[in-house]
Amino acid sequence: MNQLPLAELVLSDLAQHDRGSQMPRHRRLYESIRGSILSHRLPVGAKLPSTRDLARDLGLSRNTVLTAFEQLIAEGYVKAQTGSGTFVADTLPEAESAVPVPGAKRASSGPIAAPQASAFAAAAHTAPPLQARLSVRGEKLARIAAGERYEIQPFAPGDPDFSIFPFKLWQRLQNKYWRDARPELLDYGSAGGYLPLRRAIADYLRVSRAVRVTTDQVLITAGTQQSLSLSAQLLADAGDLAWVEDPCYWGARRVFEAHDLALRAIPVDAEGMNPQADDWATDPRLIYLTPSHQYPKSVVMSLSRRRLLLDLAARKQAWILEDDYDSEFRYTGRPLSSLQGLDAHDRVVYLGTFSKVLYPGIKIGYMVVPPALVSAFKSALYDLQRPGQMMLQAALADFIEQGYFATHIRKMRLLYGERRELLRKTLKPILGDVAMISSEESGLHLAILLPPDCDDEELARRAADEGLSVRALSTYYLGAQKERGLVVGYAYVPPDKIAYYGRILGNVIKAGLRR
Amino acid sequence: MNQLPLAELVLSDLAQHDRGSQMPRHRRLYESIRGSILSHRLPVGAKLPSTRDLARDLGLSRNTVLTAFEQLIAEGYVKAQTGSGTFVADTLPEAESAVPVPGAKRASSGPIAAPQASAFAAAAHTAPPLQARLSVRGEKLARIAAGERYEIQPFAPGDPDFSIFPFKLWQRLQNKYWRDARPELLDYGSAGGYLPLRRAIADYLRVSRAVRVTTDQVLITAGTQQSLSLSAQLLADAGDLAWVEDPCYWGARRVFEAHDLALRAIPVDAEGMNPQADDWATDPRLIYLTPSHQYPKSVVMSLSRRRLLLDLAARKQAWILEDDYDSEFRYTGRPLSSLQGLDAHDRVVYLGTFSKVLYPGIKIGYMVVPPALVSAFKSALYDLQRPGQMMLQAALADFIEQGYFATHIRKMRLLYGERRELLRKTLKPILGDVAMISSEESGLHLAILLPPDCDDEELARRAADEGLSVRALSTYYLGAQKERGLVVGYAYVPPDKIAYYGRILGNVIKAGLRR
Repeated sequence: MNQLPLAELVLSDLAQHDRGSQMPRHRRLYESIRGSILSHRLPVGAKLPSTRDLARDLGLSRNTVLTAFEQLIAEGYVKAQTGSGTFVADTLPEAESAVPVPGAKRASSGPIAAPQASAFAAAAHTAPPLQARLSVRGEKLARIAAGERYEIQPFAPGDPDFSIFPFKLWQRLQNKYWRDARPELLDYGSAGGYLPLRRAIADYLRVSRAVRVTTDQVLITAGTQQSLSLSAQLLADAGDLAWVEDPCYWGARRVFEAHDLALRAIPVDAEGMNPQADDWATDPRLIYLTPSHQYPKSVVMSLSRRRLLLDLAARKQAWILEDDYDSEFRYTGRPLSSLQGLDAHDRVVYLGTFSKVLYPGIKIGYMVVPPALVSAFKSALYDLQRPGQMMLQAALADFIEQGYFATHIRKMRLLYGERRELLRKTLKPILGDVAMISSEESGLHLAILLPPDCDDEELARRAADEGLSVRALSTYYLGAQKERGLVVGYAYVPPDKIAYYGRILGNVIKAGLRR
Repeated sequence: MNQLPLAELVLSDLAQHDRGSQMPRHRRLYESIRGSILSHRLPVGAKLPSTRDLARDLGLSRNTVLTAFEQLIAEGYVKAQTGSGTFVADTLPEAESAVPVPGAKRASSGPIAAPQASAFAAAAHTAPPLQARLSVRGEKLARIAAGERYEIQPFAPGDPDFSIFPFKLWQRLQNKYWRDARPELLDYGSAGGYLPLRRAIADYLRVSRAVRVTTDQVLITAGTQQSLSLSAQLLADAGDLAWVEDPCYWGARRVFEAHDLALRAIPVDAEGMNPQADDWATDPRLIYLTPSHQYPKSVVMSLSRRRLLLDLAARKQAWILEDDYDSEFRYTGRPLSSLQGLDAHDRVVYLGTFSKVLYPGIKIGYMVVPPALVSAFKSALYDLQRPGQMMLQAALADFIEQGYFATHIRKMRLLYGERRELLRKTLKPILGDVAMISSEESGLHLAILLPPDCDDEELARRAADEGLSVRALSTYYLGAQKERGLVVGYAYVPPDKIAYYGRILGNVIKAGLRR
C-alpha cells in the first residue's frame, strides 16, 4: 500500500469529533493519526505525506505538523526513514493472530504458544464474570463491604464530634510550619515519624495510660488500619491463627482476612475475652484485644482476665495487639491502665489513634512495639507504607506539648459524658426491662442488649428508615452464638438532638420487639 | 494475713522513687499501692487500712486517698466488701503455677493445660531469639530493610526538588478550607476520595497521559505503596505469580512479598520488559510495569512491547499494574501516552502519585481501575486503609483546577531537564567510553551502565564515602543475570552543585574501574 489521502482522513475525523475541543492543534492532529493507525484505517507500512504537504492540505503551520509527527515517532506509531519518508510502524499484533512469542513476529510460532492461543480463543467467549476474577481474599472483602455504607447520621458508632474541633487553633499551629518552609518536613520523613511527636506521645502514654514506653518504641503510622497491617505482615504468616474477640471490630477482622490469617472467634463475656478449653488447645500467633472498652460490646476487661491473657501470650509465644481506640474517654475517674503496662514479657503491641480524639480524617495513629521489634517495624513501615505528613505531625506535636490536647480531651470527655447520660435517660423509661443498656462509663458508643429471639438486623433497618445509623450487634459476630442488640454511638449527636432522636430509637426498638 | 503497715510501705516507696515526680498525689499513691500488689509485698487477701486512717498516716487529704482507692477498685487490684473493708483481689496468677484454665482457678487443672505448661517451662530457657519470632514474611522484610538507610544526599534516586515547592501558595489554598471550617472535610471522607479532586485528576490524565478514564474510576489513596497493597490484596492470592521487571523498583517488590506473592523476574532490555519463552509458559496474576520510564534502568517501553504485554494480559487474564511514577517529566516533546490508554480489554490498573510532582510527604496518590472493579476497590479502600486528609485533597483539587499544577510541572520540567543535561555533560568527558549513560529524556534519575565485571556495590560505597547517595544497579535485580551500573538522581541537586558533585562522582567511578 502506498501514500494515503491522510489529509482527508484527518479532516473528516476532526470534523466529526473534535469541533469543540480545546486541545492544541498539534495534539488533535496526533490523536487523529494515532486513531487512524489503531483502527487500521492507516495500515502497517502506509506512507504518510510529507509534513510540508500535510500542513498545506490541512491549513496548519508546518511546526504543528512536525510536533505531532515527533510525538508519533517517539511513541512508536510511525517510523521515519531518512530520505524516503515516514511510515506506519509494524508493531500492531493483528486481532486474529496467535500468541506473539518474542522473536517470532508472526503467529506461526513455537510449541508453547499454540495451545495457549487456542485455549484462550475458546475461553474468550466464556469468560467468567469479572467479579470472579478478583482474588479469593478480594472476593471475601468485596462481599462484605461494610465501608461503602458509611454515612454520618445520628448514632453512627465510633464517630467523635469533630464539628467542635478547634479549627482556628489547629490552623495557626500548622501555619507556623508552613511559614517556616522547612523543606525537610516535605519529605517522607525519617523512619518512625517526627521525633518530637514520638516523644510527646511517649510522655502522654506513660502518664495517662500507664504504658511502659521509651520514645524509640513509638512509631507514627497513618492510622490503626495501617498499624494492624504492619503487625499482621511482620508477626504472622498466611494461614497463621489469630484470636479475635467475638463480637469483634470489623475493621481489624478485614485486615487480618486480607493477610490470610485464620481467625478464631473467642467469646466475650462481662470481663472481656474469655477463652474456653478448646480455645486453649490452639496456638494463636496474634491475639487482638480491645481491653479498655470492648468494641462493640462496651465491657472493660477485668484484671484477672488481663493477667490470664498476658500469661497465655507469654506461654504460647503469641503477640497481643492491644487496640486502645477510645480509652481517653472514661467518664468516672481516670482512664484505666493499659494492658501493655502490665506485661512483663514484651508480648504486647499497643495501638492508638488520634482519629477519635481529634478528627477521623487526620489519619495519624501510633504503635508502641516491644524494644526488640523496633528496628524491623521501622524499616517495614518505610518500605511498605512510606511515612509522610510531617507538617501535620509537627503541628500535632505542638498541640500536645502546649497542653491543647489535654484540654481538648477534658472538654470532649465532659460533653460525651453528658450525651451518654442523656441517651441512657431517654432510652431507659421507653425500653424498661426488655433491653439492657451497657453501663460502662467510657467510650463513644454503648451497646443495647436485646432478647435472644429478636431480629436486630431488622431493627437496625427500621432505625435506618428513620434516618438513624445504628448497627446490629449480631453482625459483629463470627461464631454461631450471637447476642442480639444494637450498637449506638452518641458522641457525634448534639445534646439538643439526643433526646429527640433517642426517643425515636427507643420507640423503634419497643415497637419492633412487641411483634 | 491481716492488716499490713501499708502507710509505711507507701511512704518508703515514695521516698525511694518519686521524690521529684510531677504526678498528682492520688496518682502517686495509686502507683505505690499497685506496685506493692504486683510485687507481692501486699499479698492476695491483705486488708487495706481505712481511707481515713491512711490519709492521716500519710498526711494526705481523705479525697486523695479515696481517688486512689477508686482507681484500684476500677482496675480490679482491690475489692471493697461492704461493711468489712478493702482487700487485695485474688487475680494474680503465681509465676510457678501451670496454665490457668478458665474456670479452674488453680493449677491442678485439666488434661489440656498440663503438657503445654511443662513444654513451655522447658522452652522458656531456650526461647529462640526474638528476631526469629517474626513471621517468615516479616523476617524477609527485616533482612532487606532498604528504607532505613534513606537519607537526602546529592544523587539519591527518585527525590524531586521539593525545596522549591510553592509553600506560600499551598498554604493559602489550604487555609481557605481551614477558615471555612467545614466539618465534613475532617471525616474519613466518602469512599474513593474528594470528588472534585477525582474529577481534576481524570481531566488531567485524559489530556496529558491519554488515559481512558471517568471520574468514577479514579480512587484517591495515601500513595503508590497503598495502591499496590490494595491491588495485591484484591487481585491476587498468597502464592499467586507476579511478573516484575528485572531490575525492579524495590518498593513494589516489598509490597508483593509482604502479600506472599511469588515473584518472577522478567528481563528488561532496551524496549522494556521482555518475556522469554519459559516466561510465557507461566501464568501471572499480576504484571508490574513502569512503561513510561523504567525504574531503575530508565528505558521507555516500545509500542510493540506495550501491545505484546497488553495482548498477553488479555489472553492470560492477568492484571497489569502500570506504575506511572514520574512520567510528567519528559524533556523533549509531550509526555508519552499511557499503556492504559492502549488497552482494549480493561486489564490495566493505572497508578499515579503526587509525591514526585509536589512533595514526597504529601502522601496522596491515585489509581485508575477498570470500571468493573471500581466498587470492590472503593469498599476495600475504606475497610482496609480508611481514607482521610480531605482538607489536603480539597486544596490539591484547587491547585490543579486553578492551573498551578500545570505551571509547577512546566517549571520543574525545565529545571530538571537542565540538571539532567548538566550532569550528563559533566560525566561524559570523565567517563569516556567505559560507561554508558542512559539517554532517555525523562524522569528524575539516570542509569550509568558499567562493564559487567565491575563491583557496582563497592562503587556506591565509595561514592557514599564522598557524601553521595547513589544506588548500585545490580541490587535492583532479582534474577542471577545482573547488569552493573549506578542509579543517579539529579532532580534534587541544585544546578550550581551538579557540576561539582558530578565531577566527584565521575572520578570515583573512573578510579574504581581502573583497579
